[in-house]
Amino acid sequence: MLIVMKAGASRADVAAVEDKIRALGFTPNEIPGSTRLAVGITGNQGPLDPGMFTVMGGVADAVAVSKPWKLVSREVKPDDSFIDIGGARIGGGRFGVIAGPCAVESREQVDQAAVAVKAAGAHFLRGGAFKPRTSPYAFQGMKEEGLKILADARAKTGLPIVTEVMDTRDVELVARYVDVLQVGARNMQNFSLLEAVGGQPKAVMLKRGLSATIQEFLMAAEYIVKQGNYKVVLCERGIRTFEPMTRNTLDLGSIPLIKRLTHLPIIVDPSHGTGDRASVPAMARAAVALGADGLMVEVHPEPEKALSDGPQSLTPAGFAALMESVRAIASVVGLTLS
Amino acid sequence: MLIVMKAGASRADVAAVEDKIRALGFTPNEIPGSTRLAVGITGNQGPLDPGMFTVMGGVADAVAVSKPWKLVSREVKPDDSFIDIGGARIGGGRFGVIAGPCAVESREQVDQAAVAVKAAGAHFLRGGAFKPRTSPYAFQGMKEEGLKILADARAKTGLPIVTEVMDTRDVELVARYVDVLQVGARNMQNFSLLEAVGGQPKAVMLKRGLSATIQEFLMAAEYIVKQGNYKVVLCERGIRTFEPMTRNTLDLGSIPLIKRLTHLPIIVDPSHGTGDRASVPAMARAAVALGADGLMVEVHPEPEKALSDGPQSLTPAGFAALMESVRAIASVVGLTLS
Amino acid sequence: MLIVMKAGASRADVAAVEDKIRALGFTPNEIPGSTRLAVGITGNQGPLDPGMFTVMGGVADAVAVSKPWKLVSREVKPDDSFIDIGGARIGGGRFGVIAGPCAVESREQVDQAAVAVKAAGAHFLRGGAFKPRTSPYAFQGMKEEGLKILADARAKTGLPIVTEVMDTRDVELVARYVDVLQVGARNMQNFSLLEAVGGQPKAVMLKRGLSATIQEFLMAAEYIVKQGNYKVVLCERGIRTFEPMTRNTLDLGSIPLIKRLTHLPIIVDPSHGTGDRASVPAMARAAVALGADGLMVEVHPEPEKALSDGPQSLTPAGFAALMESVRAIASVVGLTLS
Amino acid sequence: MLIVMKAGASRADVAAVEDKIRALGFTPNEIPGSTRLAVGITGNQGPLDPGMFTVMGGVADAVAVSKPWKLVSREVKPDDSFIDIGGARIGGGRFGVIAGPCAVESREQVDQAAVAVKAAGAHFLRGGAFKPRTSPYAFQGMKEEGLKILADARAKTGLPIVTEVMDTRDVELVARYVDVLQVGARNMQNFSLLEAVGGQPKAVMLKRGLSATIQEFLMAAEYIVKQGNYKVVLCERGIRTFEPMTRNTLDLGSIPLIKRLTHLPIIVDPSHGTGDRASVPAMARAAVALGADGLMVEVHPEPEKALSDGPQSLTPAGFAALMESVRAIASVVGLTLS
Repeated sequence: MLIVMKAGASRADVAAVEDKIRALGFTPNEIPGSTRLAVGITGNQGPLDPGMFTVMGGVADAVAVSKPWKLVSREVKPDDSFIDIGGARIGGGRFGVIAGPCAVESREQVDQAAVAVKAAGAHFLRGGAFKPRTSPYAFQGMKEEGLKILADARAKTGLPIVTEVMDTRDVELVARYVDVLQVGARNMQNFSLLEAVGGQPKAVMLKRGLSATIQEFLMAAEYIVKQGNYKVVLCERGIRTFEPMTRNTLDLGSIPLIKRLTHLPIIVDPSHGTGDRASVPAMARAAVALGADGLMVEVHPEPEKALSDGPQSLTPAGFAALMESVRAIASVVGLTLS
Repeated sequence: MLIVMKAGASRADVAAVEDKIRALGFTPNEIPGSTRLAVGITGNQGPLDPGMFTVMGGVADAVAVSKPWKLVSREVKPDDSFIDIGGARIGGGRFGVIAGPCAVESREQVDQAAVAVKAAGAHFLRGGAFKPRTSPYAFQGMKEEGLKILADARAKTGLPIVTEVMDTRDVELVARYVDVLQVGARNMQNFSLLEAVGGQPKAVMLKRGLSATIQEFLMAAEYIVKQGNYKVVLCERGIRTFEPMTRNTLDLGSIPLIKRLTHLPIIVDPSHGTGDRASVPAMARAAVALGADGLMVEVHPEPEKALSDGPQSLTPAGFAALMESVRAIASVVGLTLS
Repeated sequence: MLIVMKAGASRADVAAVEDKIRALGFTPNEIPGSTRLAVGITGNQGPLDPGMFTVMGGVADAVAVSKPWKLVSREVKPDDSFIDIGGARIGGGRFGVIAGPCAVESREQVDQAAVAVKAAGAHFLRGGAFKPRTSPYAFQGMKEEGLKILADARAKTGLPIVTEVMDTRDVELVARYVDVLQVGARNMQNFSLLEAVGGQPKAVMLKRGLSATIQEFLMAAEYIVKQGNYKVVLCERGIRTFEPMTRNTLDLGSIPLIKRLTHLPIIVDPSHGTGDRASVPAMARAAVALGADGLMVEVHPEPEKALSDGPQSLTPAGFAALMESVRAIASVVGLTLS
Repeated sequence: MLIVMKAGASRADVAAVEDKIRALGFTPNEIPGSTRLAVGITGNQGPLDPGMFTVMGGVADAVAVSKPWKLVSREVKPDDSFIDIGGARIGGGRFGVIAGPCAVESREQVDQAAVAVKAAGAHFLRGGAFKPRTSPYAFQGMKEEGLKILADARAKTGLPIVTEVMDTRDVELVARYVDVLQVGARNMQNFSLLEAVGGQPKAVMLKRGLSATIQEFLMAAEYIVKQGNYKVVLCERGIRTFEPMTRNTLDLGSIPLIKRLTHLPIIVDPSHGTGDRASVPAMARAAVALGADGLMVEVHPEPEKALSDGPQSLTPAGFAALMESVRAIASVVGLTLS
């Protein structure tokens, strides 16, 4: 059930609605909209009587929600959500580009990458300080030292930072240094981690799990939003199928569907989605053409020397060329780059 | 092994090469190129000595082929192949659009669809006369009567016809009426059917199987081409994954990879690939943006009355709107509509 | 709708029921049972009134069928179906074993295999004369010559023959030589072939498609049975998943479910299901333990010399050892070997 | 590289080998065997010279390891590992059965289940106190209160306890109450959690991820063992495929393969693997027949009232009947129940 307040409803009207919800034993969740506020009710098992709320002052409507996800539902909040970090925006008609190396390897590597992607028009810098690796013997990341390097690159370029957090115990540390906390594909159903990033104030980028259904993806976002953090960006990064020639199968068909189901922005990661530098530009252009809200692209100053994911990383020159075609297609489909 | 002839090689030079191949117990396959001819050798188990051929008159080079597919390989024929039916072209820089109803249901329905898709700019008319249906109790198509309706629609509009053939015994009949024989996803590894369509002169559209790897897809095309028919168009139409919310998972990431591996053109079917009319335009735009050679789109005059696949069929108005955005993106990526 | 006749109903009673069905514009299908006959109605789109039939002479009941498959449904025929070729039986409590080489390669190879598998206790001989191969350059089978070799091996050992047919044009030829026509995984939805094997009198073994759902598998069997041929054995042979270490993922969990849904017998092919000789015995034992109706196992006199599927073929000694453990477990779960 | 010590090697010999490994900049890992000790070397990127070690006192051999997993490899430790909690054993020829409710719901429910599964012959009691749920609105478990109920049930019945831990911050708490810490399918690549359970002394049961390859499964176990905890049991619980009729596809074919690749024991969870009570007994029998090391089965005193996974839970009577057939098949294949 969603209680939609009138445009001119007072805080006292809202408080009365919330008190009534609590009196029924349920939980109110304020959902901010561009013109008016709604209050979602969670905790109820079955349907509620709309009449209990429509008689109250300041209430425009009380509508039932038909999907298992509530707070992230487009039914509940028809207008687009977006994140905005000092003007770098993803969602709401603004196409945002996140670029940078897979892993933070050194100060020089990050600085070179940051300067290059900024020059080409990227809006956010990415880089992994904590790396989830299939093998315990592979490079596991520079950890806090890597976070410092990223923060310094932000100081130099002004680009907000996106980086992954893997452990509930590290959430506070990572949030201290960066602007967007990434929850990786392998942790999409690490529910403790979802609650932890939902309970802190920085924005969150949630990647789709390797075999997560779209419903599970939205329910994972619901875990975050339920803690009060609406600054969530979804990221399609490919799913696991039987095809051995590509690293993953980038499920671009999920994008138009997800945009109908949720108000949260969704971006595309063609680097992990294909695993092959030669296919990244084509898939990035496709993502713009179909109306995604942004891209995350791996760029490394020297891909052949990368400690992880070199084969899928673009060179700075390749990224600059890609940004040209992204801009050209964005203008055709009515998207503005941040 | 591929014997590349010089630009000025005579027919006698070519014949001498082919005789030598036959003398070794193998089979020569002429592969026409835009400027010069190549002769593929099939039937050999291991590597051959290039020197046997490079000493012969008119021979430019003799190169080993490293993939299990040969005749369809981009290594063997670097320039794009295309099909051209009276000016309606798919491939080689020309973006071709096939549109029409899933199934032929009546003369009126096909005529309305044909006129509408022609007006919106489609280059080919599609319509199923033989329908592969999961249930033996579902509508199985109008069969030869349907073929006649399609041929009459061609007479009225000038649009070449694409239709499916399901049985080796029907190949000759279908080829008599239509311009492009479609081998459907369920028959992608019906090797008898592949050989049968390879042994007749009309063009063939081969759809990717529901769980076919890219390698299997190319090997299936190789079956057709090996019979001498190079007029083959591949069609990505989605693969089967765990995701229940979409009919199939449209594997757009296969397109740039397939274009690197083979000289054959590849088009995209967003109708079966998503199963949902609301997602078709976005996925069609994506297909243009990433450089596919064409589209196949289901259009029905009255989708809600369709005997099959109504939910994924566009209305004529929806199709006309789609063609607008297809043209806009095609011009950005340097593709010409036929 | 299923019309269940009384145990003592006369042929005239049955004929009257069938005439009424035809008068309504639908098709009657006689379904033989161990104690009494039922008549299935196909062709109707919606529900029928049971009262039209329950008032007729000899009719015990008229029941609606809730699944998309009808004639193969366990609802329609609660007791097990089986095939019986001169005493070699699969289904109805009898566990049947089909063994032999993947492909017929020579008279000697087939004869050796036939004698060995007969000695170890197999009930049927298998061997491929028409081979579906991913590559057009791979060995395609000995064709009619192979059928003759198989028929001669039957003459020597008394083992009924199971072999694959791939083309509707070959059905009559293959049926002339062998006892059970196999429809392979790649042709599970080759509906023309399903109808062709359904329209001839020999038994049919239908293998599950590489990405066929259980519902599609049963619907494919329905295509065969709808033509009047109830002598159908299903075969689980593994499905395609993301796992690269096994050739296929043998879906043994389908067996108990399929046995609840249909009266048709279902056997297991652990050779294709694993692709690895070392795993075949364990999976074969599992198949017995969970109540499958039989096994199909590849056995080659010299697996290392096999023209196809050598790595998954057992040696004669390995097969004999397997049969020992199969018998031991069969006795525990109450199955009798044919 | 694996240094295999002679049967009579002294502790001083072992210490000398380990010192040399550390001097090279790598890490020694003691791998206990039934008759002699081995020392695995981790941290090296490339191959090492065996001669550096074979000249040392007490060293029998120095062998290269060819797989990406090392410490869990059967190459490294040919004899079976097992866990043993006060005589309840899994692995090494002993078939162990874990049974109990999906979630701890109340003291009465757990006590009833514990008494019933003990009477039927189970060796371990399972029950979830921390529940990973797709929806944040579903029952999330009784948490520490649930752990107390489980510990009390152990006091009453003597059954060791298996329960899931989902958060690194809870590892110490859970380990204080229970005997085996379960890492669930969704956390199989939660590498922080793997390291945390590897760094404490209680046994660990690691479930295969929903789309984890066998290689990834073994690498996840390697993360645990690398921290020094060799008391690891693997659990096959089904993978995600396209099949909608079963909750998961139980990949029994992984069992014989995994037993060849690793010395760790592997058990089967037919409850999650099928999602359907009616299929659980058949799949459990299959698991015994093919040589798994144990079972984990959901049993609930009143499945129809269960807060989670009722449809797949056996009744106590159903479980007792299952144990009868498990014992019968175990005796055929030479397995002893704990």
